[in-house]
Amino acid sequence: MKYGIIGTGAIGGYYGGKLAHDGQEVHFLLHSDYDFVKTHGLTIDSCEGSFCLEHPHVYRSTYDMPVCDVVLVCLKSVNNELLKTLLPPLIDEHTLVVLIQNGIGVEADVQAMFPTLQLAAGLAFICSSKTKPGVVSHQCYGHINIGNFSCKDEALIQCLVSEMNKAGIKTGLVDYNEARWKKAVWNMPFNGMTVALNTRTDLLLKNPSTRQLIKDQMIEVVNTAQHLGVEHIDESFADLMIKMTDEMTPYSPSMKLDYDFKREMEIYYLYSRPLQIAREAGYPMPKLEMLEAELRFLQASYHNQDK
Amino acid sequence: MKYGIIGTGAIGGYYGGKLAHDGQEVHFLLHSDYDFVKTHGLTIDSCEGSFCLEHPHVYRSTYDMPVCDVVLVCLKSVNNELLKTLLPPLIDEHTLVVLIQNGIGVEADVQAMFPTLQLAAGLAFICSSKTKPGVVSHQCYGHINIGNFSCKDEALIQCLVSEMNKAGIKTGLVDYNEARWKKAVWNMPFNGMTVALNTRTDLLLKNPSTRQLIKDQMIEVVNTAQHLGVEHIDESFADLMIKMTDEMTPYSPSMKLDYDFKREMEIYYLYSRPLQIAREAGYPMPKLEMLEAELRFLQASYHNQDK
Repeated sequence: MKYGIIGTGAIGGYYGGKLAHDGQEVHFLLHSDYDFVKTHGLTIDSCEGSFCLEHPHVYRSTYDMPVCDVVLVCLKSVNNELLKTLLPPLIDEHTLVVLIQNGIGVEADVQAMFPTLQLAAGLAFICSSKTKPGVVSHQCYGHINIGNFSCKDEALIQCLVSEMNKAGIKTGLVDYNEARWKKAVWNMPFNGMTVALNTRTDLLLKNPSTRQLIKDQMIEVVNTAQHLGVEHIDESFADLMIKMTDEMTPYSPSMKLDYDFKREMEIYYLYSRPLQIAREAGYPMPKLEMLEAELRFLQASYHNQDK
Repeated sequence: MKYGIIGTGAIGGYYGGKLAHDGQEVHFLLHSDYDFVKTHGLTIDSCEGSFCLEHPHVYRSTYDMPVCDVVLVCLKSVNNELLKTLLPPLIDEHTLVVLIQNGIGVEADVQAMFPTLQLAAGLAFICSSKTKPGVVSHQCYGHINIGNFSCKDEALIQCLVSEMNKAGIKTGLVDYNEARWKKAVWNMPFNGMTVALNTRTDLLLKNPSTRQLIKDQMIEVVNTAQHLGVEHIDESFADLMIKMTDEMTPYSPSMKLDYDFKREMEIYYLYSRPLQIAREAGYPMPKLEMLEAELRFLQASYHNQDK
């Protein structure tokens, strides 16, 4: 199969790199790192074994790339408007596009741009970062779950799962809604609260007041998901997420990194969109609504400082 | 009438100073400023006209003070445990104690210490600060509302209101519950949010997300107060408070000043107590609950830094 990677950063570089290293045909879209990677290759410094792709297929524009069987979209969701122009050269009626992105609602919005496109969600559980041009540092985890959103070609999804596993990426096939909402149970409290209180996951759980608040926010997501008909999600899942986080090393979620580096935060798909869905369903999430407002205030403040 | 002032700071210094300047017999309890005021007097730098009390009655201990007709308690509520030992020398069965303090529940707790004491609430609308030893700087406003909590001696309260007005303090008599809850409509959102987002009242209202959040939090207080049977409070009162704040000069509420100077914040009476009352009444205030948790986290953080 031919793979296209849109966004060759911490996520796209790792998953695309693993596939290429396993011998798959992978085409990488690059932006600022193009010249470096063209000359020096793409390096994956990984806890599971490092490697360098010396001559990957790299491109500055998707118009130079072939139509692919599978496209992994690894952009930050704040840039999803770009997909209108980036995707068309890579897709035909057989292509599967996997959005490896945070939040709720990304697939629905991309589907609205391309009504007949076959789409799936990719839920990555990974700690990785791009430490310098052409170098992805992979610290731990790395498994990914695929949730089918609108792909009629079951064989294609099965083939993707199988090839990813063969490439050393632990890959599962999961229910789309269940996977997106379960991920939101962790993402919505921790991404925003580490920004709002300028802190870390472990310190939020150590303080009894914020530990209870994180639990309350998780329960808001669980309740909304249950009312939306999502299965296999209840209060015990929130307890499990807290226990898992207790056992993790102190961690800065992606939104905290964006805030620290004064990059735009993914407020829309991580908060505004699920909050809107929840309100429309009649099950508002008041504490997460408050968190959204605080994040919008903080983002506006640091943007104003730059001017 | 004999007046006792417990806590001769920005509030107690101003109101006690005005009464003494008008010729009333006022006895001031001082702590760190005692020596300075004993020697140099108490100065009120006021937008309405400055003055200095050259030889006020000042004390280091309430055991040296006379029994008073009216005691104004102007301590921060975090120190209310001290009243157990401070108050007895100043009170007999005729004394009225007025708590000029923030929050909900202060009168009930002091009443529990002194079951037969005559108590009232004093709700001060004033911008003043103690800028240096023995000097109170009064920037603007200054009116005060008295709400009767447990005083059977109506004549005494009327006399207090009349003497305060005569001393140039605009003083009204209001319904206790209505006054405390109406003040909470402003206090609960603005005190905590200026701390949580390290900002000012005007910037919170300028950003559309936090403007809506402040409104939501005000409505939480209004709803709870309505369900508790408080009269003359509805959504229009929240709109009025926002309009009033739009017209105020940018302002740091007392909790923000406490936070900036790393003093203990009045979280208990401003948040924990009214939140508990609301939960017990079956009308929780989720966004203000979240704010309480954030404040407890922030307070614990700066206390830990000091160690």
